[in-house]
Amino acid sequence: MKVINKESRIPLYYQLMDIIIEMIEEGYLSENDQLPSERELCETYSVSRSTVRQAIQELEKEGYIYREHGKGTFVSPEKFKQDLLSFYSFTDEMKKIGKTPSSQVLDFKVIKCSDELAKKMNLASGDEVYMFTRLRLADNEPMMLETSYVPCDRFPGLTKEQLEQNAMYEIFTKKYNAVFTCAEEIFQSVLTREDEAVLLLYRTGLPAMMIERITHENDMIIEYTKGIARGDRFKYHVLLKK
Amino acid sequence: MKVINKESRIPLYYQLMDIIIEMIEEGYLSENDQLPSERELCETYSVSRSTVRQAIQELEKEGYIYREHGKGTFVSPEKFKQDLLSFYSFTDEMKKIGKTPSSQVLDFKVIKCSDELAKKMNLASGDEVYMFTRLRLADNEPMMLETSYVPCDRFPGLTKEQLEQNAMYEIFTKKYNAVFTCAEEIFQSVLTREDEAVLLLYRTGLPAMMIERITHENDMIIEYTKGIARGDRFKYHVLLKK
Repeated sequence: MKVINKESRIPLYYQLMDIIIEMIEEGYLSENDQLPSERELCETYSVSRSTVRQAIQELEKEGYIYREHGKGTFVSPEKFKQDLLSFYSFTDEMKKIGKTPSSQVLDFKVIKCSDELAKKMNLASGDEVYMFTRLRLADNEPMMLETSYVPCDRFPGLTKEQLEQNAMYEIFTKKYNAVFTCAEEIFQSVLTREDEAVLLLYRTGLPAMMIERITHENDMIIEYTKGIARGDRFKYHVLLKK
Repeated sequence: MKVINKESRIPLYYQLMDIIIEMIEEGYLSENDQLPSERELCETYSVSRSTVRQAIQELEKEGYIYREHGKGTFVSPEKFKQDLLSFYSFTDEMKKIGKTPSSQVLDFKVIKCSDELAKKMNLASGDEVYMFTRLRLADNEPMMLETSYVPCDRFPGLTKEQLEQNAMYEIFTKKYNAVFTCAEEIFQSVLTREDEAVLLLYRTGLPAMMIERITHENDMIIEYTKGIARGDRFKYHVLLKK
């Protein structure tokens, strides 16, 4: 067993974090396993309660563990690491890591663009767009909630049923011969709202990533999507070059 | 004055949002201006209290406005839009938008790498690194809190005073002839902790972006930084290509 070196210049809570992280990474503790209690950790590693608390707090903040009120502390499922280098789709990304993606279409309608939406989509106020909200799941676990706006002119005859059965980008490319030229995304850290928490089986006030996406087909914007992703399940990776 | 069209298929709260956003964008309402009260908005636009509340809630979530308990609702300062296309520095980005960047070095010391840190930085456990925490400000307003780890071997003689007087990347390139080859960043949505909130003049539990950055000089990692950025002041933009 690894021990804590009290002579070391490395802070004790940091050493304890290292020990717990190693137990997770080497598989001694698996997803959703309960951690030893604070008291047990104090005794096992001969450190103070405040050292244990600081380590636990830091591990929770870094997403290694989560606390359930009145139940204890557990090992977090690994976050999905979403790479922002290139164009991607939720469906493809989930398949890549061996998860089965699915979508529930919660709402589907045709609306007229408001001024604000028209400006975002390079359309005229009042132009018709499909507006639909999808709950995205991986192995039946809710991950993201997305509301998309898509110009009716470009995708005539789009239906709720199509979106329930196929990935949106697959419909766009196969049925409508769409060619995505680029997409812009904007990421903001937000708190989960009550209505979102209910659908995501998450908690109001916990952190979420709000992602706006604008997809272009040459000069035309063919998709504006605003999504909320569970902050405990996603992290985003980007490679910056000189 | 713009009015709400009750015959429209556009939801009323969405029309009201549009009106308020336009007032902000056209400068009728400026940063930190107080919004009219719920009652005034109901009367002015002949809509129900619940319509006003929904619009306000949505505008708050989108960051257009913020609420101060017992005081009212105010127009948010514009978020900084950080472009993730290429290598950037806080100092340069703030200068570009006409803000004066500054840093307070809150802590500066030499530590020995823990196993975890060594793994992240491609060093051996026990190797010495500088560890320092900087509060980054723009026009004297706290924006981010960053803790950086930098290998002592590569930057011998680095001091707290240097970091107080110059941008870190400037020291690295000018004094140590460093050449950044690439950087990786990982973004996660988190809640602000109490100790962070105090320094950022922000509130515990409000959304923040945790950003980890690893900067490479060829095969060597010359910087590992973990930062917390105020969620109400930053958004991140990325362009995805096919």
